[in-house]
Amino acid sequence: MPALAVVFDLFGTLLDIASLRDVAATVASDPAAFVATWREKQIAYSFASAIMGAHEDFDAITAHALRYTAAKYGVTLDALQHERLADAWCRVEAYADAAPALRALRECGIPAAVLTNGTPETAAAAAARAGFDALLDVILSVESAGVFKPDRRVYALATDHYRVPAERLLFVTSNGWDATGATAFGMRVAWCNRAGAPPETFGPAPAWTIGDLHELAAIAER
Amino acid sequence: MPALAVVFDLFGTLLDIASLRDVAATVASDPAAFVATWREKQIAYSFASAIMGAHEDFDAITAHALRYTAAKYGVTLDALQHERLADAWCRVEAYADAAPALRALRECGIPAAVLTNGTPETAAAAAARAGFDALLDVILSVESAGVFKPDRRVYALATDHYRVPAERLLFVTSNGWDATGATAFGMRVAWCNRAGAPPETFGPAPAWTIGDLHELAAIAER
Repeated sequence: MPALAVVFDLFGTLLDIASLRDVAATVASDPAAFVATWREKQIAYSFASAIMGAHEDFDAITAHALRYTAAKYGVTLDALQHERLADAWCRVEAYADAAPALRALRECGIPAAVLTNGTPETAAAAAARAGFDALLDVILSVESAGVFKPDRRVYALATDHYRVPAERLLFVTSNGWDATGATAFGMRVAWCNRAGAPPETFGPAPAWTIGDLHELAAIAER
Repeated sequence: MPALAVVFDLFGTLLDIASLRDVAATVASDPAAFVATWREKQIAYSFASAIMGAHEDFDAITAHALRYTAAKYGVTLDALQHERLADAWCRVEAYADAAPALRALRECGIPAAVLTNGTPETAAAAAARAGFDALLDVILSVESAGVFKPDRRVYALATDHYRVPAERLLFVTSNGWDATGATAFGMRVAWCNRAGAPPETFGPAPAWTIGDLHELAAIAER
């Protein structure tokens, strides 16, 4: 049965977080390690926030994670540098296969949406800059649920928006824990394993594992 | 005001997870990296489980994390090897300062407890093997709450047990996120920063940061 819509994670799935290395290189001697820690801590803080029931939005979480990362690598950031780095999340570069995958879905007549941990403002800015505006039906932010993925209430934003059962949506993410959460919620999930990581061993396995987004339209039409 | 009881995290705080490297060395060429990934994934899966409301006990989470880790490092574990590695959590070695700190509290007349993500069985076995039995008042496991730290319901197991306000308990942990969670719950917290990590930047800061457990009795008596 074809998917009634395809719902994408944004950061790490359509947008390449590694592209933050350029701005990180202006302050850090090992920009790849700096960005890796920043991302890990951003995820860890979003998880802790969700479990503690102490929600702060993703821009705030990103800023906290940046301060931790700077301290870890002995980098002193002045206010301008901090702002330039944090703002770079509005300018994360698209993966080369992202726009073609969105266009292929459009040609199949299948709507595409984003469901992101990001704030509405940052997600909208990043999607616009990446040229996704005309290709996306809607951008759904966890801010409408007040909690981060993989809480079920976040995935429910997509089923509520499209008013369809979870299994009629195809969810696409590069994050293993996001694939687990969406699968547990009942969505059909394509885990885009760009990093070649081992499969997750906790929770239900996603329906599909793909290496990039090229095969996506074919999966969505099945 | 002296603490009415001191509540310790177990794995990583009283017991040294790095001691698992010996058993990891029987299967992995880089046992330190193997144990680090195993621990990171154990924590990540416990977090995902808590957020998803899909609780499995810590022994199961530890086993899932072990399977992921083995796959990551290209290690094939037969059933016996898997069991030997998983069972090693019952034999994690104590930090040298752990029993002396517990004894110092006993001499001050302050009860000491454990509050752990571990199952009652594994935590009891590990504490007994480390020689803590006569030094601990009680071992509280998250299994009584059915969710992992840093969910508030876990920290409430300690206030429920001692029937005291949170601020009359001193909580001791080496995990930054655990220190954040207990502080947000209202406990006085000593973060035992054994690894020399940067302070966490999300959530409320712990009352004390200590490098090891030597100063603990003095803090508890304050």
